[in-house]
Amino acid sequence: MDTAGKVIKCKAAVAWEPSKPLVIEEIEVAPPRVNEIRVKIVATAVCHTDLYHLYERMHKDGFPVVLGHEAAGIVESVGSGVTEFKPGDKVIPIFASQCADCLFCKNPKTNHCVQTWSEVREDALTAPDSRLSCKGKKILQFLGTSTFSEYTVIRKYNLAKIHPDAPLDKVCLIGCGICTGYGSAVNTAKVEKGSTCAVFGLGAVGLAAVMGCSTAGAKRIIAVDTNPEKFEKAKIFGATDFVNPKDHSKPIHEVLQEMTQGGVDFSLECVGSSAVVESALLATVPAWGVSVIVGYTRVQKFTARPTDLLSGRTWKGALFGGFKSKDGVTDMVQRYMDKKLMVDEFITHNMDLGQIMEAVELMKKAQCIRVVLKTSPQ
Amino acid sequence: MDTAGKVIKCKAAVAWEPSKPLVIEEIEVAPPRVNEIRVKIVATAVCHTDLYHLYERMHKDGFPVVLGHEAAGIVESVGSGVTEFKPGDKVIPIFASQCADCLFCKNPKTNHCVQTWSEVREDALTAPDSRLSCKGKKILQFLGTSTFSEYTVIRKYNLAKIHPDAPLDKVCLIGCGICTGYGSAVNTAKVEKGSTCAVFGLGAVGLAAVMGCSTAGAKRIIAVDTNPEKFEKAKIFGATDFVNPKDHSKPIHEVLQEMTQGGVDFSLECVGSSAVVESALLATVPAWGVSVIVGYTRVQKFTARPTDLLSGRTWKGALFGGFKSKDGVTDMVQRYMDKKLMVDEFITHNMDLGQIMEAVELMKKAQCIRVVLKTSPQ
Repeated sequence: MDTAGKVIKCKAAVAWEPSKPLVIEEIEVAPPRVNEIRVKIVATAVCHTDLYHLYERMHKDGFPVVLGHEAAGIVESVGSGVTEFKPGDKVIPIFASQCADCLFCKNPKTNHCVQTWSEVREDALTAPDSRLSCKGKKILQFLGTSTFSEYTVIRKYNLAKIHPDAPLDKVCLIGCGICTGYGSAVNTAKVEKGSTCAVFGLGAVGLAAVMGCSTAGAKRIIAVDTNPEKFEKAKIFGATDFVNPKDHSKPIHEVLQEMTQGGVDFSLECVGSSAVVESALLATVPAWGVSVIVGYTRVQKFTARPTDLLSGRTWKGALFGGFKSKDGVTDMVQRYMDKKLMVDEFITHNMDLGQIMEAVELMKKAQCIRVVLKTSPQ
Repeated sequence: MDTAGKVIKCKAAVAWEPSKPLVIEEIEVAPPRVNEIRVKIVATAVCHTDLYHLYERMHKDGFPVVLGHEAAGIVESVGSGVTEFKPGDKVIPIFASQCADCLFCKNPKTNHCVQTWSEVREDALTAPDSRLSCKGKKILQFLGTSTFSEYTVIRKYNLAKIHPDAPLDKVCLIGCGICTGYGSAVNTAKVEKGSTCAVFGLGAVGLAAVMGCSTAGAKRIIAVDTNPEKFEKAKIFGATDFVNPKDHSKPIHEVLQEMTQGGVDFSLECVGSSAVVESALLATVPAWGVSVIVGYTRVQKFTARPTDLLSGRTWKGALFGGFKSKDGVTDMVQRYMDKKLMVDEFITHNMDLGQIMEAVELMKKAQCIRVVLKTSPQ
């Protein structure tokens, strides 16, 4: 049945209110408009940012919404002005846009793009609009994506075409966490061959950062987490040393300084905690240490002394691992196809969209790395 | 009269106690020991760091001391192990060492050196030793230098040989403030051609930073100071725009963001205030702004939000403008001799060593840029 140009009725997990369980509903997905693509989502993962919106941020105008932004699918139909995609293309939606045409996109120093959702209204396709509705109500699109759905509509700026043989139930992870962690090591920290690194926090982003450090040729990668069960996984991605802050009475940066005769060359904060941000800076060698903030937290502040930087340290950060979003995702999928990037190793659970609250609970309890939900048969 | 190997009696300004006026005394300067050089100081300037030690830090074991570290002179005699210098060489002492042999000196990423005075004991030649005495008491050597004296003894790691025709009453300024400010722009921020910069604080260091930005090819340099009398001087060094925070009711970073459609590419904090450190970061463009802490302050802390860096900013710092100290000073004097570096323009007053308290008062009241004191006839 040709669905192009028609409203599609399909299943989606709707977040009606903050802090309430997602509900599987039948929603209506309008056809794509100019510069938009309607995508059949085949697989989606759950990321902490989804939970953050649901349980912590709770933007007053941010509901009802379909969450989900780490996914992969197949183009169903395209709106006018779209020449880059055609029905049947395998694609990955990305919360960060790349229009290829703006001041930022043309500047190699940044992956910002003027087409990216604003910080103020991150919950709509093109604020305040959306292509989703349910029971006659407009349903917002989280980060311009909304992948907890069998179908969604994505702007062409936020969609990467990927290798036609890519397994969507695996490469869906490349749409957020893997690029964020891996790119933070490779693009933002610019980890050097033979260097010593520390990665704080061993969720999917932290593990991807470990992999990035390893790929960049770091000779020593110290994995730091308060949950020692994660160390075995970190080893698979290349970690060489393992530190549980709970095993030490002194501040963790002092432990790392002692382990490394003065501090690591590069540190990556993949937790999203101001206290860890501070520790990660101080864990670097004063003369040339580079510390990268990777974990997202909006409200907390961190503090430091000017002398912490005057000694020669650099403190930086980036979103989406500094990748130009579409180019980065396409390339990273190619790396996976070339067996130069681990992805399968992040997946601890496979479920169906209907089990999304089980997945959410596993994330909340930190009992998984990534849960991949099958939304539609490939 | 050949003084080599003998104790030299000469005049120096001694700080007997914290917060008390310096006193011109006759002191005794012992001959240089192994790896040391005795230098006839011809001209010395007063830097805020001298005042900081006297009036603010007041290290309990840091007195009596001869302050002063921004100077130029002539080698009088050398100790054993010294082959790089001979009597008559023109030299500049530097608080930061460069032994050329250590892990740091061999690493192009830093200007640290294992021979540098320690953070704990910055007030001795080689803690707790000194070559100076007065009235039978050991007098400490500030930052391993002590240039408020007709003669002093400097380790070979802290002394740069300079062009034989260099006018010492001018190039003495290259020993601290000029390198610190200029290098922060050129080496640490790595200011780019065509960029927009902001320099906070227009003392000697800030003016040198303005000059560094200008030399690097910045097309717009916004000079920020609460004392508008400094703007005329800043213009000489290359500033194109002038902002007095007192003229604005909104935070100064917002003023700069509006002036530059989103923020400057590079900002340099040359005040030594945590509040200004924070403003300087936020004044940079979120996507790629680089903010460098130049001003020294030990006790204050600064704060920021992780998102301030996650957006793509970089925060960094360096001592002595990131220059390998001896190489940097020699090169900068050469630049001056080649008329590629302004130095004379920093000098607002010329006095004799006996007038040092007048110079100190001018510094305290911010009524000068640099006062150069003649210590011995050249």
